[in-house]
Formats: sequence, structure tokens, C-alpha cells
Amino acid sequence: MRDTYHEELDSIGEGLVEMARLVGSAMGRATTALLDADLQLAESVIEGDEKVNALQQDLEARAIQLLARQQPVATDLRIVVTSLRMSADLERSGDLAKHVAKLARLRYPVSAVPGHLHSTIMEMGQLAQRLMAKCADVITTKDVDMALEMETDDDAMDALHRKLFQHLMDDRWKEGIETAVDTTLCGRYYERFADHAVSCAGRVVYLVTGEHAEEVASAEG
Amino acid sequence: MRDTYHEELDSIGEGLVEMARLVGSAMGRATTALLDADLQLAESVIEGDEKVNALQQDLEARAIQLLARQQPVATDLRIVVTSLRMSADLERSGDLAKHVAKLARLRYPVSAVPGHLHSTIMEMGQLAQRLMAKCADVITTKDVDMALEMETDDDAMDALHRKLFQHLMDDRWKEGIETAVDTTLCGRYYERFADHAVSCAGRVVYLVTGEHAEEVASAEG
Repeated sequence: MRDTYHEELDSIGEGLVEMARLVGSAMGRATTALLDADLQLAESVIEGDEKVNALQQDLEARAIQLLARQQPVATDLRIVVTSLRMSADLERSGDLAKHVAKLARLRYPVSAVPGHLHSTIMEMGQLAQRLMAKCADVITTKDVDMALEMETDDDAMDALHRKLFQHLMDDRWKEGIETAVDTTLCGRYYERFADHAVSCAGRVVYLVTGEHAEEVASAEG
Repeated sequence: MRDTYHEELDSIGEGLVEMARLVGSAMGRATTALLDADLQLAESVIEGDEKVNALQQDLEARAIQLLARQQPVATDLRIVVTSLRMSADLERSGDLAKHVAKLARLRYPVSAVPGHLHSTIMEMGQLAQRLMAKCADVITTKDVDMALEMETDDDAMDALHRKLFQHLMDDRWKEGIETAVDTTLCGRYYERFADHAVSCAGRVVYLVTGEHAEEVASAEG
């Protein structure tokens, strides 16, 4: 049987996983709203972000209570402090999903993304969702190898981001400036979302090994 | 005479102020590098960001040591935890200054910003620097009113950001897509930098009043 302290610690971990699942789903739905110019779906993502923010505040309050009541040291202390940073990553990821949804709403009833970029944006959206799902798994399993894999997965996001820029810079770009601006911002939202997923999972590596993800990766590779 | 504990706490506050001063200066120099297409200055900003990252890691380590050794409760605990979040805001602000400098480097020997936008970008850069200087002052003085003022100051950044977009969307835009993409990203870097300065100062409000900056602002006005 676990004591209250470890139950509280576990429940913070569960809160992080719930946040990751929520923001991953939000980014998936925001992408669909963007590509299908679905106003209702966009609105639901925008409203749903409040739940993510509330979860973060709750999680933060519980982490601070835990610090005050239990005064953990060493590894336990590191877990609680790291949880605070992970929840900040996830909260920010929720904002980015909301930004994508807001872009969908702004250009409704037209899709903010031109037809020939739909497949690239869809891939970015799907990859963003997979990265966040993997982040949730890493939080649950504390699997360091899985967390380190995510750095490589993120290279695929960078490649998609570059592909998007190549389309933008192509002389055959005929969609005008407004769409170029929308596409630029959109690309950045997905890229940042992926960064936060990787960073959040990387903090698990730090918890388990005491070293930052980059150090572990470079030592292994 | 202050005890060791409060000396350590003060030194964390000083570390935050130093970070704020460094990233404010970095954003000022990055803006100059961008407008003047000054490669050397851009490089110095890019390299200088490592110092900011090192400061943050040092500050984080000291905060965790403080938690472990002194096991603060109540307000003191809140100060340490909030410091961790403030240092994350400042570290991220440093990244954004670096992004501006990288854009300057990427387009060298040409300025990434077209001539007719120089004054707007200069204003954004100066405002970003003023906001960060004010953030440093708020950390030092714990002046809640000054922190709340920053929300209004930030409206000026949003107005500049809108102005930039109006230029982009103007039919007379003749600078092509690449420059439109650069300008879009650049605008976003300044806007996010300002957000982090405001958010960092807002955490001081939370420390002093126990309420979040938005709540205090809405109660007052």
C-alpha cells in the first residue's frame, strides 16, 4: 500500500497525463477545424482551453501544497519541481492548439490553408498529436528511451516545417500575402507545440537519469 | 543582519534581475542588428544567449537546493516556486531575442525588414526593451502598481503588431513573400517577448497579493 505522500505524487503525474491527452486532442481537432473550415469545432477547441488552464492551476496548487506539507528532498523534490515545469509546457501547448483554432475561426467560411498545403498541414497536425500522445506515455511509463526517440520524431516536424517554407518561397505561390502570413504562423504553432511535447518528455529523462535529455542523447549517440 | 536563508532568497531575486537585464539588452541589440544588417552584432546576441541559459540553470539549481535545505513554507515557498517560473519566462525571452538575431544573420547583408517598416520594428524593439527593463524594476521593487501598468504598456505592443499586419495586408505590399514571412515571424517574436516580460512581472503581483495579475487589475478597474 502506498502512503498519502506517494498517492499525492501519483495524482500529480495523472494530472499531467490528463493535460497531455487534452492538449493532444485539442491540436487534432484544431487541425481538422482549420482544414475543413469547421467553425463549431474551432469554437469548441477555443472554449476547451479553459479546462487545460484550470487543470494547470489545480496541479500547481497541489504541487505547492505537497512541497509545504511533505517537504520532500532529493528525488522527490525534483519530481515535484519538474512537474511544475511540465505543466507549464502542457499549458502552453494548449494555447498553441487554441491559436490554430482561432486562425480557423478568423478565416471561416474559407480554410486558412490553401488546398495544395492541406496534406502538409495535416501531417504536421497528426505528428503533433502523436508526439503529445508519446509524451503522455513517457510520463506514465518513465521510459527514457521513448523520450529520447522523441528528439528524432521531432526532426520530422522540422522537415515538414521546412517543406511548408519551401512552398511559401516558391515563385509559383499564388495565394497572396494574407495566406502566406497565416501559413507562416500556423507552421510556427505546430513546430512550437512539438517542441513543448519533446521538452516535457525530456524532463522525464532528467528525473530518471539526473541528466538533461540532450546530454543523455549525445552520450548514447 | 539577514540570515543565510534570506540571503539565498535575495540572491535568487538578483539572478532574475540579471537575466532580465541581459535579455532586454539582447533584444535591443538584436533589433539593431536586424535593422542595420549588422552580422557581428547578430552573432554576439546569438552567442550571448548561452549565458542566459547558464544563468537559468544555475538559478534553478540554487532554488532546488534552497527548497531541499530550508524547506520553506507559505510565502517563502511561493517565492521560490514563482522564481522558477519567472526564470523560465526570462530564458524563453532570451530565445526570442536570439531568433531576431538569427533572422538578421539569415538575410545578411540585406536587412530582413523592408525600409518602410523600419520605424515600426524599431518601436517594437524599443518597447520590448522598456517592458523588460520595467520587469527588472518590478522584480527589484515588488511594486504591484508598476507591474499592473505593464498590462497597459503591452497594449501598445499589440497595436504595433496590428500595424505591422496592416502593412503586410496592404495591396501596395511589393516586398514579396519571403519578406512577408520574415516580417510575420519577427512581429511574433516581439509580441511573445513582451508577453513574457508582462507575465514575469505579473508573477510578482501574485507573490505580493496572492492573486493573479488579471484578478487584481479587474478588481481595480
